[in-house]
Amino acid sequence: MLGLDWGTTSLRGYLIGADGSVLAERSAEAGILQVRNGAFAEALSDLAGDWLASDSTLPIIASGMIGSRQGWVEVPYVDLPADAGGLTLYSHDGFDRPIHFIPGLAVRDGGGVPDVMRGEETQIIGAGGLALQDGLYLLPGSHTKWAEVKDGNIIWFTTFMTGELFAALKGHTILGRMMMGEADDDVSFRRGVNYGQGAGGTLQRLFSARTLALFGELPETGVADYLSGLLIGAEIAEARALVQNPGSMIMIIGNPDLSRHYLAALSISGWPAEIAPAGATARGHWRIARAAGLLPR
Amino acid sequence: MLGLDWGTTSLRGYLIGADGSVLAERSAEAGILQVRNGAFAEALSDLAGDWLASDSTLPIIASGMIGSRQGWVEVPYVDLPADAGGLTLYSHDGFDRPIHFIPGLAVRDGGGVPDVMRGEETQIIGAGGLALQDGLYLLPGSHTKWAEVKDGNIIWFTTFMTGELFAALKGHTILGRMMMGEADDDVSFRRGVNYGQGAGGTLQRLFSARTLALFGELPETGVADYLSGLLIGAEIAEARALVQNPGSMIMIIGNPDLSRHYLAALSISGWPAEIAPAGATARGHWRIARAAGLLPR
Repeated sequence: MLGLDWGTTSLRGYLIGADGSVLAERSAEAGILQVRNGAFAEALSDLAGDWLASDSTLPIIASGMIGSRQGWVEVPYVDLPADAGGLTLYSHDGFDRPIHFIPGLAVRDGGGVPDVMRGEETQIIGAGGLALQDGLYLLPGSHTKWAEVKDGNIIWFTTFMTGELFAALKGHTILGRMMMGEADDDVSFRRGVNYGQGAGGTLQRLFSARTLALFGELPETGVADYLSGLLIGAEIAEARALVQNPGSMIMIIGNPDLSRHYLAALSISGWPAEIAPAGATARGHWRIARAAGLLPR
Repeated sequence: MLGLDWGTTSLRGYLIGADGSVLAERSAEAGILQVRNGAFAEALSDLAGDWLASDSTLPIIASGMIGSRQGWVEVPYVDLPADAGGLTLYSHDGFDRPIHFIPGLAVRDGGGVPDVMRGEETQIIGAGGLALQDGLYLLPGSHTKWAEVKDGNIIWFTTFMTGELFAALKGHTILGRMMMGEADDDVSFRRGVNYGQGAGGTLQRLFSARTLALFGELPETGVADYLSGLLIGAEIAEARALVQNPGSMIMIIGNPDLSRHYLAALSISGWPAEIAPAGATARGHWRIARAAGLLPR
């Protein structure tokens, strides 16, 4: 089968064997923001035309923002709880064979405010070495997702804009003007995490990244790490109050650098966590395709 | 006397009579970021050379970022508690007569993290119609200050980067891309305030400005007002947990539009507030100059 991880800024294709192993992998700068005039079929042929030509029955499954309003087709969100089998695929015929889009997920909080994900559901489902395990899942990024799995179903998730907020504060506020490079300063990062996760308010704490540097109590080379720690620490404190089982093991799925940052912050917070094995997305494609009966069993 | 309100982006001069009334007022785009090569004396002469020439004994007092490391001279911060008389002026001789700089204030929270203000202390001291009144003071802006006055002294303050945070989120994140103009949408603003001040975490709530619009549950013309309300509501909730006397009357000092926004948000929160009479800065200059014995009594 061909699994497509098709996001806002990139397209990645996995050629996946019947047993779930990844036989080959390719990527292109063909995210939905880069493809012009809806030429998604052409982008797919450019990426994987030879694979598709060699087997006219090769199933195609796709996850990510390709199923959003700005993508190839808009696939409605699925409500929680959801497992691999609950993600009813949306088949689209605008290609030489059906493309099976994996729907994103939607959830509402107690006040009715919605939250959404597209693509992360596939990573969560593929995260564990075996089947989807109960517990907490953390997907760090511009829009970091926290999700909770119970009885094999995703039962809750939420979004923290921590990554995008950090970039905006760094690039476009006085806090960024205090920063002199990024030194990977563990001491400043730890200090930020501790201050960020304490009782009290996050908005009020942001200015400390300026005042501590102003008073010479934080090295200018550590301001970026301090602010990053402060935001991640605050995120962890907020998440602790939101999840059903605070303190239970967290599986982190994401790029290695960012995952290690979160692992360090969680360790400072005394919250057990581990980094998921690589290959979650392709494994998610395969599990969802199998649950949908797209593959021989 | 001549009172100078000399900030980062502008210079304002007040010619003040012996009774504290403002006789004339001028401003120039001569903030400390605009003045080149430390030519502060020239900028002052450009603004008020004729006033100064007409009275060689006219006292000069200055407040704001002009007393910071990037200003004319760096004036050390004064610790709390402080009143008009406690702000020992820093006299500088780099002009045809001494310039009396009003020091900024510094405070540390329970964990020793510092906070600072430069200029706002003068506005607080000049805010009331009569002498400095006990109560809460709110100075909205890029860096909004909250301060508490007791027994005629400023005993506490803190900084929320709410204005700068809003601008960064609007200008440089996905939330800004959801915004279609600013409609002065009171309903969306109120909704944001209510959601922002509720129990729970601010970081987690930011994404609602995207998802509500995505689901058509918030008009795109209201997203900016919603986000502004959400941040101000969160700020009010954090401040409530920080001040000694939550719920006591707040005096708002600032530009009229922003002051009205905060007044509306505080009203939604059930917190009494009023907008200070205009002229707080010049009145502060006069009161501090009088307390320092610069004026005939």
